[in-house]
Amino acid sequence: MMDVTGNIFEHVSSGALDEEFTNLLAVEGLMIERIVSTGQASPPGFWYDQAWSEWVLVLSGSAGLLLEDEPTPRELKRGDYLLIPAGRRHRVEWTDATEPTLWLAVHFVPQPPARNQG
Amino acid sequence: MMDVTGNIFEHVSSGALDEEFTNLLAVEGLMIERIVSTGQASPPGFWYDQAWSEWVLVLSGSAGLLLEDEPTPRELKRGDYLLIPAGRRHRVEWTDATEPTLWLAVHFVPQPPARNQG
Repeated sequence: MMDVTGNIFEHVSSGALDEEFTNLLAVEGLMIERIVSTGQASPPGFWYDQAWSEWVLVLSGSAGLLLEDEPTPRELKRGDYLLIPAGRRHRVEWTDATEPTLWLAVHFVPQPPARNQG
Repeated sequence: MMDVTGNIFEHVSSGALDEEFTNLLAVEGLMIERIVSTGQASPPGFWYDQAWSEWVLVLSGSAGLLLEDEPTPRELKRGDYLLIPAGRRHRVEWTDATEPTLWLAVHFVPQPPARNQG
């Protein structure tokens, strides 16, 4: 029987050189991921351009998330969540330099409505 | 343009009579929900029996979650997450009596693999 359990706050390293990505759940069309950022940002000129949607929730630390069609980054603090629809280009301008930024990211493939197309 | 944002820790009432359920995101096949429990438990004899799967994460407080095929409730504390597959009957035996228990619940319809059936 499938039984996926753990604690999201465990084993958060504060001085990693790279961002750390951990799959908490991966099934068809859905992936729940923990991301730990320790000051990293997206490389200059880089944009995430995803075919899937992503719902993010910041559980500690903070980050500046820039959406391509907005003039300035949104500051996400502990508890803030945001939906990034598929195809909406975005980048991480900065993450907290003083403590780890813990993200919960729910990636999902938008499904067409099932019932109204029959 | 869809833009669903907020803070999951805001407006948590500590003395509500009933559990509080808030949809943070609802799209076809996926619902992300905040639940605030303040000491409630499932009624005696009641079992959740869901056709969809549910991934839960406790963000504050604590709870005892009983799965039907297990002898004792699992104690979920801050940061603990658990997948409850579709059809696995379960109930909430208790929630924290001293502080609100804040759950993030990701409900999703299991999808058959798309590529291997073709």
